[in-house]
Amino acid sequence: MIDHVLTLLEEKRYTEVKETLLSMHEADIAEVFEEISDREVSLRLFRLMPKEQAAEVFSYMEGDVQQRIIEAITDTELKHILDNMYLDDYVDLVEEMPANVVQHIMRNSSAKNRSLINQYLQYPVDSAGSIMTNEYVYLKRSITVAQAFEVIRNTGVKKETINTCYVTSADRKLIGEVSALSLLVADPDEKVGDIMEESTIRVHTLDDQEDVAKMFSHYDLLAVPVVDNENRIVGIITIDDAIDVMQEENTEDFERMAGMRPSDPGASYLKTPVLSLAKNRILWLMILMLSAMVTGALLESYEAAFAAIPLLVTFIPMLMDTGGNSGSQSATMIIRGMALDEIEWRDFFKVWWKEIRVALLCGLALAVVNFARIWIQYKDMYVALVISLTLVCTVCIAKSLGCILPMLAKKIRLDPAIMASPMITTITDACTLVVYFSFAVRFLADRL
Amino acid sequence: MIDHVLTLLEEKRYTEVKETLLSMHEADIAEVFEEISDREVSLRLFRLMPKEQAAEVFSYMEGDVQQRIIEAITDTELKHILDNMYLDDYVDLVEEMPANVVQHIMRNSSAKNRSLINQYLQYPVDSAGSIMTNEYVYLKRSITVAQAFEVIRNTGVKKETINTCYVTSADRKLIGEVSALSLLVADPDEKVGDIMEESTIRVHTLDDQEDVAKMFSHYDLLAVPVVDNENRIVGIITIDDAIDVMQEENTEDFERMAGMRPSDPGASYLKTPVLSLAKNRILWLMILMLSAMVTGALLESYEAAFAAIPLLVTFIPMLMDTGGNSGSQSATMIIRGMALDEIEWRDFFKVWWKEIRVALLCGLALAVVNFARIWIQYKDMYVALVISLTLVCTVCIAKSLGCILPMLAKKIRLDPAIMASPMITTITDACTLVVYFSFAVRFLADRL
Repeated sequence: MIDHVLTLLEEKRYTEVKETLLSMHEADIAEVFEEISDREVSLRLFRLMPKEQAAEVFSYMEGDVQQRIIEAITDTELKHILDNMYLDDYVDLVEEMPANVVQHIMRNSSAKNRSLINQYLQYPVDSAGSIMTNEYVYLKRSITVAQAFEVIRNTGVKKETINTCYVTSADRKLIGEVSALSLLVADPDEKVGDIMEESTIRVHTLDDQEDVAKMFSHYDLLAVPVVDNENRIVGIITIDDAIDVMQEENTEDFERMAGMRPSDPGASYLKTPVLSLAKNRILWLMILMLSAMVTGALLESYEAAFAAIPLLVTFIPMLMDTGGNSGSQSATMIIRGMALDEIEWRDFFKVWWKEIRVALLCGLALAVVNFARIWIQYKDMYVALVISLTLVCTVCIAKSLGCILPMLAKKIRLDPAIMASPMITTITDACTLVVYFSFAVRFLADRL
Repeated sequence: MIDHVLTLLEEKRYTEVKETLLSMHEADIAEVFEEISDREVSLRLFRLMPKEQAAEVFSYMEGDVQQRIIEAITDTELKHILDNMYLDDYVDLVEEMPANVVQHIMRNSSAKNRSLINQYLQYPVDSAGSIMTNEYVYLKRSITVAQAFEVIRNTGVKKETINTCYVTSADRKLIGEVSALSLLVADPDEKVGDIMEESTIRVHTLDDQEDVAKMFSHYDLLAVPVVDNENRIVGIITIDDAIDVMQEENTEDFERMAGMRPSDPGASYLKTPVLSLAKNRILWLMILMLSAMVTGALLESYEAAFAAIPLLVTFIPMLMDTGGNSGSQSATMIIRGMALDEIEWRDFFKVWWKEIRVALLCGLALAVVNFARIWIQYKDMYVALVISLTLVCTVCIAKSLGCILPMLAKKIRLDPAIMASPMITTITDACTLVVYFSFAVRFLADRL
């Protein structure tokens, strides 16, 4: 579909483009803009849409495309788009654009929107307030169902989540909620306060957005009301924003676990400049390289051993890799379990005991295979024994570190994901080599 | 709150427990049951709740707790729970329970539910059909808004997503949708067909559930209608189920990227037996160990080199770790980018070129630090040169493999996540060592 529009555009068959756009979803049209690099062409495409559709497509665009459009269209066109945006999208837009574009936007905003946006921008990044929207309906508890219908008719046409209306006391304190459904089936003369459900779930403007996102899946919510210090409702957070937060958090965990500083939320890989990518990666590479040097220094004290039996060196990669892999398996399970709130600090010993048993099972299996292979290939029982014993120890150490370090990190309020594979691999490597050469010195002493 | 209830229970202060439960959210009460291991105690707690609340709490429970409850309560109690469950939760329950419990459930199901469940169980796992529910409202396009209100009143009280009603032709083919809001504000005599929006977004019963989940964030949906081969609406998928699918997919990616076979979706770490954990991990550990042996075998051909200059061995861990870490950084970015549909096959060269430039920047920085350190510590310029050159090559190789392999995997329809860090580390290790000793042989020839 997207390619079809691009082809039509290239062949300048604008009437057909126009017709095709009418049958497409706005999110898909926004994707067409992603593929167009020429400013003239995207402006022409933008103007082929009816005003309402154009405004909606705009909301689905990525920041860089939005900027290109804003810089190209007239003030009247911009005003129309801004007037039709949901407040949370509006705030996102202002946050993402460079200063000169923000000025341009503010000049074309209504006074009411300007003051709303200034108010919303004051909430800290990552707070519930920063992702909430004002597109909700609230009803005083003392009004009747029939009056509630009037309120909804008058204010509700652009509201994101009409499904639930929030019920407040006379001074706007949040006391409950009522679904569109129960209003629909209620007697028109009943009081809203009598058919509402008292609400217990709410978040504070300054709550962490990650905690808020978790509440959505814990309680199966579609929206959650946000209250201020006086318990007055000031906004709602809808599930689409909560999903964005969840995805961002997952991406951050992936990045931390691979030893990177997380990239900007919302910045896609292809649009991140090479220099920022390198900057996010170099710090951890450097730290890990320097710590691997410690492992190297440990090796120096065993130079005599591998000068005497060079065969010993050829097992180093296998031992190190197996240790690293065993450790990251455990670390990944634990970090993910903690991210989903399945594993808590009080499970510490339960988890460790589990990992030790898994490690013994895995370690023994690997040791047996290795013993057989070395025995067959080199007919050297003592070397086979040293390698196999080292393997079992390595897997046990790696899996212990893999569960202990992330849990400790969380306990001291660090992100457990920074204690993931690379960190654990480096520590496991050092332990493995010490164990390896200790066994070698003990069992192969006569040959050294 | 949860601890509070547990304490009250232990002290047998049942009246207070009862009161506390009334003010708690059902999802939190379900968590209390997680913490109780004694069957008698959980049965008593369950019976302290009013019937309606008990049924709702039941829906939020984990499978093992549900099973314990089902085995303890009477048939009448079970019937009441089942009658109050949403169909999708009902189907999940039947899928999760062991055969004897399923028989018990089926005996207590109404004939209508029995046949519905049998029908739903026929959809393949991972298909849209397997996660849909029948709790939706559909309206014939020819009826009036007033009649629509009647339909909703009569059928809608237990519907999950009353926010959107689906509009069908006389033969139940899906043609559009109408929001509760637009019904509310419409003239009662208007035809539903005249105020509906034609709907273009729908999924087929056999569509992959992962694709369906992606549609939710792409189009910002709260629910999506599911149609059969004849384009008749047969169910809807609601966003809470889509979020579950997304989280499961993310967890699977985490596990694959750490070299594990993904665990059962929905099985939490603490509840997975040691043997299954070991089974999921051992296969990849074994494969990777065997491939690391290849690296070891490569080393054998350089035995003369490290017998002559044992110092060379001490750099092996640092070179291998840096290669592994550089590779997993790239692989993680690429795999995540592909999972979020930000990176496509057509971006292949763009991505590779980006990674090469990042690799050069990172590699050079690491090389400079290393050169300085070896120069200062060992005053050996040729060794310093060999290590630094190897580092730059290693990082370039690792980052190239880290983007090429996952993209190739996806191209040939493998899960890109299996080409993640452990696999790439193993391949990078082999390349690194070959490069390392080739440089060594060339630059240090006179000393060997």
